[in-house]
Amino acid sequence: MEIENSLRHLLESLRKGEIDVDSAMERMSMLPYEDLGDVKLDWHRSLRRGIGEIIYTPGKSDDQLVKIARSIAEHRSNAIFSRVSKEKYELLKTVLPDLEYREDARLGLCCFEPPKERGNVAVIAAGSSDKPVAEEAAGVAEFAGCHVERFYDVGVAGIHRLFNLLPKIRKADAIVVAAGMEGALPSVVAGLVSSIVIAVPTSVGYGASFGGLAALLSMLNACSGGVVVVNIDNGVGAGLAASLVATK
Amino acid sequence: MEIENSLRHLLESLRKGEIDVDSAMERMSMLPYEDLGDVKLDWHRSLRRGIGEIIYTPGKSDDQLVKIARSIAEHRSNAIFSRVSKEKYELLKTVLPDLEYREDARLGLCCFEPPKERGNVAVIAAGSSDKPVAEEAAGVAEFAGCHVERFYDVGVAGIHRLFNLLPKIRKADAIVVAAGMEGALPSVVAGLVSSIVIAVPTSVGYGASFGGLAALLSMLNACSGGVVVVNIDNGVGAGLAASLVATK
Amino acid sequence: MEIENSLRHLLESLRKGEIDVDSAMERMSMLPYEDLGDVKLDWHRSLRRGIGEIIYTPGKSDDQLVKIARSIAEHRSNAIFSRVSKEKYELLKTVLPDLEYREDARLGLCCFEPPKERGNVAVIAAGSSDKPVAEEAAGVAEFAGCHVERFYDVGVAGIHRLFNLLPKIRKADAIVVAAGMEGALPSVVAGLVSSIVIAVPTSVGYGASFGGLAALLSMLNACSGGVVVVNIDNGVGAGLAASLVATK
Amino acid sequence: MEIENSLRHLLESLRKGEIDVDSAMERMSMLPYEDLGDVKLDWHRSLRRGIGEIIYTPGKSDDQLVKIARSIAEHRSNAIFSRVSKEKYELLKTVLPDLEYREDARLGLCCFEPPKERGNVAVIAAGSSDKPVAEEAAGVAEFAGCHVERFYDVGVAGIHRLFNLLPKIRKADAIVVAAGMEGALPSVVAGLVSSIVIAVPTSVGYGASFGGLAALLSMLNACSGGVVVVNIDNGVGAGLAASLVATK
Amino acid sequence: MEIENSLRHLLESLRKGEIDVDSAMERMSMLPYEDLGDVKLDWHRSLRRGIGEIIYTPGKSDDQLVKIARSIAEHRSNAIFSRVSKEKYELLKTVLPDLEYREDARLGLCCFEPPKERGNVAVIAAGSSDKPVAEEAAGVAEFAGCHVERFYDVGVAGIHRLFNLLPKIRKADAIVVAAGMEGALPSVVAGLVSSIVIAVPTSVGYGASFGGLAALLSMLNACSGGVVVVNIDNGVGAGLAASLVATK
Amino acid sequence: MEIENSLRHLLESLRKGEIDVDSAMERMSMLPYEDLGDVKLDWHRSLRRGIGEIIYTPGKSDDQLVKIARSIAEHRSNAIFSRVSKEKYELLKTVLPDLEYREDARLGLCCFEPPKERGNVAVIAAGSSDKPVAEEAAGVAEFAGCHVERFYDVGVAGIHRLFNLLPKIRKADAIVVAAGMEGALPSVVAGLVSSIVIAVPTSVGYGASFGGLAALLSMLNACSGGVVVVNIDNGVGAGLAASLVATK
Amino acid sequence: MEIENSLRHLLESLRKGEIDVDSAMERMSMLPYEDLGDVKLDWHRSLRRGIGEIIYTPGKSDDQLVKIARSIAEHRSNAIFSRVSKEKYELLKTVLPDLEYREDARLGLCCFEPPKERGNVAVIAAGSSDKPVAEEAAGVAEFAGCHVERFYDVGVAGIHRLFNLLPKIRKADAIVVAAGMEGALPSVVAGLVSSIVIAVPTSVGYGASFGGLAALLSMLNACSGGVVVVNIDNGVGAGLAASLVATK
Amino acid sequence: MEIENSLRHLLESLRKGEIDVDSAMERMSMLPYEDLGDVKLDWHRSLRRGIGEIIYTPGKSDDQLVKIARSIAEHRSNAIFSRVSKEKYELLKTVLPDLEYREDARLGLCCFEPPKERGNVAVIAAGSSDKPVAEEAAGVAEFAGCHVERFYDVGVAGIHRLFNLLPKIRKADAIVVAAGMEGALPSVVAGLVSSIVIAVPTSVGYGASFGGLAALLSMLNACSGGVVVVNIDNGVGAGLAASLVATK
Repeated sequence: MEIENSLRHLLESLRKGEIDVDSAMERMSMLPYEDLGDVKLDWHRSLRRGIGEIIYTPGKSDDQLVKIARSIAEHRSNAIFSRVSKEKYELLKTVLPDLEYREDARLGLCCFEPPKERGNVAVIAAGSSDKPVAEEAAGVAEFAGCHVERFYDVGVAGIHRLFNLLPKIRKADAIVVAAGMEGALPSVVAGLVSSIVIAVPTSVGYGASFGGLAALLSMLNACSGGVVVVNIDNGVGAGLAASLVATK
Repeated sequence: MEIENSLRHLLESLRKGEIDVDSAMERMSMLPYEDLGDVKLDWHRSLRRGIGEIIYTPGKSDDQLVKIARSIAEHRSNAIFSRVSKEKYELLKTVLPDLEYREDARLGLCCFEPPKERGNVAVIAAGSSDKPVAEEAAGVAEFAGCHVERFYDVGVAGIHRLFNLLPKIRKADAIVVAAGMEGALPSVVAGLVSSIVIAVPTSVGYGASFGGLAALLSMLNACSGGVVVVNIDNGVGAGLAASLVATK
Repeated sequence: MEIENSLRHLLESLRKGEIDVDSAMERMSMLPYEDLGDVKLDWHRSLRRGIGEIIYTPGKSDDQLVKIARSIAEHRSNAIFSRVSKEKYELLKTVLPDLEYREDARLGLCCFEPPKERGNVAVIAAGSSDKPVAEEAAGVAEFAGCHVERFYDVGVAGIHRLFNLLPKIRKADAIVVAAGMEGALPSVVAGLVSSIVIAVPTSVGYGASFGGLAALLSMLNACSGGVVVVNIDNGVGAGLAASLVATK
Repeated sequence: MEIENSLRHLLESLRKGEIDVDSAMERMSMLPYEDLGDVKLDWHRSLRRGIGEIIYTPGKSDDQLVKIARSIAEHRSNAIFSRVSKEKYELLKTVLPDLEYREDARLGLCCFEPPKERGNVAVIAAGSSDKPVAEEAAGVAEFAGCHVERFYDVGVAGIHRLFNLLPKIRKADAIVVAAGMEGALPSVVAGLVSSIVIAVPTSVGYGASFGGLAALLSMLNACSGGVVVVNIDNGVGAGLAASLVATK
Repeated sequence: MEIENSLRHLLESLRKGEIDVDSAMERMSMLPYEDLGDVKLDWHRSLRRGIGEIIYTPGKSDDQLVKIARSIAEHRSNAIFSRVSKEKYELLKTVLPDLEYREDARLGLCCFEPPKERGNVAVIAAGSSDKPVAEEAAGVAEFAGCHVERFYDVGVAGIHRLFNLLPKIRKADAIVVAAGMEGALPSVVAGLVSSIVIAVPTSVGYGASFGGLAALLSMLNACSGGVVVVNIDNGVGAGLAASLVATK
Repeated sequence: MEIENSLRHLLESLRKGEIDVDSAMERMSMLPYEDLGDVKLDWHRSLRRGIGEIIYTPGKSDDQLVKIARSIAEHRSNAIFSRVSKEKYELLKTVLPDLEYREDARLGLCCFEPPKERGNVAVIAAGSSDKPVAEEAAGVAEFAGCHVERFYDVGVAGIHRLFNLLPKIRKADAIVVAAGMEGALPSVVAGLVSSIVIAVPTSVGYGASFGGLAALLSMLNACSGGVVVVNIDNGVGAGLAASLVATK
Repeated sequence: MEIENSLRHLLESLRKGEIDVDSAMERMSMLPYEDLGDVKLDWHRSLRRGIGEIIYTPGKSDDQLVKIARSIAEHRSNAIFSRVSKEKYELLKTVLPDLEYREDARLGLCCFEPPKERGNVAVIAAGSSDKPVAEEAAGVAEFAGCHVERFYDVGVAGIHRLFNLLPKIRKADAIVVAAGMEGALPSVVAGLVSSIVIAVPTSVGYGASFGGLAALLSMLNACSGGVVVVNIDNGVGAGLAASLVATK
Repeated sequence: MEIENSLRHLLESLRKGEIDVDSAMERMSMLPYEDLGDVKLDWHRSLRRGIGEIIYTPGKSDDQLVKIARSIAEHRSNAIFSRVSKEKYELLKTVLPDLEYREDARLGLCCFEPPKERGNVAVIAAGSSDKPVAEEAAGVAEFAGCHVERFYDVGVAGIHRLFNLLPKIRKADAIVVAAGMEGALPSVVAGLVSSIVIAVPTSVGYGASFGGLAALLSMLNACSGGVVVVNIDNGVGAGLAASLVATK
């Protein structure tokens, strides 16, 4: 919406003769992102969703990360760094001294102001080895302002463990289920709840799990309706999707 | 919740001596699904979600389908049949005379009472060949009580076609995007809206599209946050997920 | 064992001078299979296991099938034909007039004498579309002398349907679970029983089920111990394995 | 069965007025697993099968492993740790001083009381490089109380090596066959015995073995009946399945 | 460029007070494509490239195709239909009576005015079975105004057949090479010429050709520089790419 | 060699002034293949190997096949057509009245003169369904002048069937082994003979055989040395390779 | 062409009796490549294209690299080394002291004379992590004499970032687009420009990106015409192809 | 044959009363392999083929390797170790002091007596990075007694490099061609020679070469007859196959 408004504003300035055609055209091409050379930070998206910028760190050079951190520090905008190694965290902290590190989740959180309040998100992990991915989802949802409840190590091998947690799980507006190996848990959970289930396959497993492919295919073929899927180990994506669902 | 209530009721009857232990145990195992022999209809789920039963027809014998249709007719419960061929439709109609057929979407709809009101769902199709899958999603969302707006043939090959539709698309509580071939549209759309994007890869394409695999992988790797994915050609799943999101 | 005995017998004949070296060598190479030209029936295996010969019909020419049927008729040996089309059944019946046809299971059974008694086998099918594969397993197990109990349409989408069947399922010496789509049921069942679970992925599904691959991978990665897997749609293999387990 | 009994007992207490409805409902949800925070130990399964708990160590943090070890020490329950590195073993030993380490098999065994007696299991390895997986299977079967006989380096490249071992192999109630590369051995063995053959593909090989995929597919397509398959390198699963078969 | 100009023109009208802000905003969203309901024809692209619209027919309903044909007839714009069956051709011809059909290439061509002149394109086919794909590429290049020379059945199995054609091939500004099976020809050709080689894998082959995958991978790994690849059987894409290269 | 000789001859003619430079260059480019328009027959290869031309018929149009048949009739050169349907055979026979049809092998043979004598080739088929591929190999080897002995239905499920055939198999100069499903037979055979084993995976099987992929991978990973592999169902390639080996 | 000329020259010398047949034959086989033992440098290709030799360094031993460097130094021919580690660079520099190292692009450039002038190439990178591949393409294009303009971090997640760069991008004769993850950018760009788009999938991503496979498939299925694709991470190939296009 | 002879001899001893039945049965099971515990050396095969034992070292423990080396030292039998690291070589040398190490080929050769003379083998490598695999093949062929000629770096990117080597290549009885990347060379070579071509795909390449899969598929689909294929990087297999072909 904000684009329409600024566009209308711009056109009205032109109409009133406050600016000329050339500067109107130039300003129309100036969109609210910041050009840091080979990195461009997009404040648009975070504005639109009311969630801070999420930065995926692997593959970015130290130089690029420092540029990004500086821009964040300058704008005092909430931001979250994902897949942050201890070393990268130390680097970022030199620029963002209040950056919080969650080692399990490999997240770096930077909150200049509290996020707007959102609904309830349940994060379920099938096995104890799925915890890092689940924590990533939980961290992002909390960063976005959700109230998060965690339910870990409740896999299908002992499905009775799930049942006495159901009353609590059913209170969530959105449910994230992280599972590796055969990835069956989201289908079982979705058969027992009425909210949407955001399934995250994890790369936990070996042999014919093929790095999470088995769990991914399993989740895409879930026979229970109401299951949607994100990429393998994509806790960030699951947490963000859950936050968008728990928004309204 | 309803299980808890009936359980409490049952236990109280036992406590009061109205029933004995054996019949308590028997009734505890009687859950609200109907056993039709080798088919079991699960009224649980539809009760829980407030959406009628969804029946996937391929692979079910004529005999099984008639049994299901009869049970629906008896319960006068809303139901939707998916991937219904013309022949199967004629068969089902003998039992359910008011069954509505949507040929494009291959859906058979049966509404004994109007669904409860839900929010807005936008259904976008990248190419004109993706229409059947998109219509499947739209049909299920309408069956669930959503207000659905359709935006077809707005693929990335001419991305400008998307832009003047944006104001309308942004009004949706949930957005379904169906695309085959390279499956790029959900990522582009998600970068421009604030709602969740439910991506449906379609099997439209040839050669290295590998029956929709290319689009599926593309969507799972969407660089825009807020994209979740369902199975290839799974319009039903996308429509149902959108309805669950647009519920609150 | 029988080979050792006949060998010992043969060597003793040689030792006693009843036969000469040349005929000893010739007889040593004569093993109990019957050479029908380009088909060889192996009575060894059926003797060893006490289960009749199992003949997979697809890919065999009419001529080959008739040869096999004739040999069976001659030996009056129990036999079971799998994946038998109606046409092939009619053909085989001309030679084996008592051949029983199970259309659901696509099996042709031919029992000249009742099989030896074996234990209990439970055959579970996740969805109603998995019935043909489940029936194939059940048919083979019955052919082998097992007592078979069927539990159909009890998939994970409504896991409560499974629970009140558990007391009966737990009585089985071996449990066959057929499931397509996400193939999660074997893992759930194995977490609730103490017998071995023989998982049969079925090709039921579409899109990213890739003809049963999703279910296959899911079952191979089952997080519950005690799950073993056979080929996609291989009801025969599952029924035979269950019979071998339920033997002792 | 034990669940039914405790449930009956609970309901009778309620009937007799010994407890009230609320505490009945609370106790019904208390199932015999132990909640260690983000790890939950499931004593159910081990009770049911009479085999101690099997713990897969990779992906578990030191903290999680110590919690598990402490719980085992407390319950004095038999347990086996799989894929245990030397380092993890040293860690676990600080809590469980009697933990036995089998380096070849990467197993840590902890037996507070001798397991119940089970039948005979033959463990066959095709090549000498398949030994670690075979030893894993053998170790688990021994842990479960089976008598295990090992037959190593008897692959199909010199099939005559198999033949003079056959009399011994045929004495087993269940046969585990571990093979990498082309994975042909289980099919050959199954053609010569009457017991079930539990095939374990190993990741031994290179190039088009694709980490054990070639062996896995080979085993799933075994033309000999009576072959069932577990995941690549899943010696634990094979040993457990063999133990369940050799139980009765 | 044309967008910039019309935008400037629009803004100037606004500046001069000839239009008001609301109609300026409305007209800014009106882009030069034609909305035919669920099909949208994009005249933009064809204008930009000076090549008529290319319409992929499979998956489009008769109704959709007729709408498209009518719009073409109205605009008298050059257009080419690909993968046109005989039946679809007859349908389209009712609207576009001058539509030319090339059966080999499965193309329908409709040229209201001669295309602008472009350079030379060589189209090489490895085997005689690759001819349909090669003809598709040749047809599109001719439609775009290129001079096309065909060289068929010159595969690597008899590489000497290629050598005496080299002088002619080297005259082309762009070279399309269609090959199935092992797909080696583009690499060999690229090692002998100085132009870019546009490789089209075809689905010609069987077994481990996996529908053209072998050829596709082969071409992507071409050790000769200057090879670029399009989708399996994508003659249209190759012909269009060659035309763009041969343009300047 | 023949190229060198004709080249030398040509250069000598030039040297002697019998021809001029231009005609020398023209003749140097004239290689012994025949240009039939979009089909080019290569007599080179057949000359070099002393085996007639082998023509793969699928994908060739009737027109192309007739052209080829006419050229063969004209040159009176031995030729073999593979994968010939009954219809194509009737077509070819109109031009080549002596064309012999082998229905099992889908081969059309055309021998104007007896082939040169070659050595012994053993063709082994694992199952009776592998016969068509085996017959294809046998037919090509016979066409090339080999003495072929067939051994069918001797798969690994009853490996004892193989052993009394070994003395005969060991007499072959080259051994072709066709097998589908798990494809284990070539490895077993190669462990028992001293000749090279040419393995042909067949597409016989279902489910996780993936159209012959399982057998192909199995054969490529054969643990016995001396196994080489051709494409799935490529009986022609196996027969030709065996003929080349049995040549010297 | 140069081959034809030297051949004509050679034949004329023979014709005139200046050389004899034997030396003619010997010289005909002497082609302009340099035999360095197990490495052969091919000056042919660089002559033909007017671009120096491109040497892919991984897998080459130090000894082989030094031989190549020495030959380059001797011929004073332009050359570019790709995927050069810091260590390999130091090694090569001992022979080629003027070798320029571009660390980002992992290129070693060696220009004895300025390349011939070519046209404009735009190099676009979707994300900042795609920079190394994009730089590789840019480096090769500059080495070939193109004028290169870089546009980095303009992925589809914020497609508005692309739009105000379009006027500049449209000036390029060839456009290289490097993208990982879902690889959607080339399709979007190609829908907005009239030049050919050379798409380079990068291995940037995780999980179901399968090392760049998702981006590769996406690009091969691009719904916009005019997209051609090179191997994953093949910046060199993209840069070379762009240079060949920008040549004329 | 030797088995038949010893069997006949044994039976004659029994016949003559020189031995009794029990010892006859025991000796019949004593086959000429040596049981070293978990390793069994098979002297059979080497006897049969007249080539020493080939031992694949990866995955074998130091202990197992020493056992094997000792047995070789004792039997003074020719043997070759493949994929030998420097460290393993040093270990083996302590037992086999005359073991020759070929670092390029990662082979350890141990020749107590010169091998029998065999024919000519040509070993061709497409690129200089394919040398290690080619050297492995060459080493094994030399070990088997062949005369080997090497032709390296003659890939299809400069196919003219191949042509002047053809006269030499054509002298070989068997031709090994090692190639990575697109793997096109074997098909080109086979089109120019009359011997069998044994193709070895190598894992040289990156991206969509998928560890040699692209080259493997390419070779399996070779359009030239007479190409057979071994596993990726399987130089040993190629060398052994070539030796078997070059034997007669």
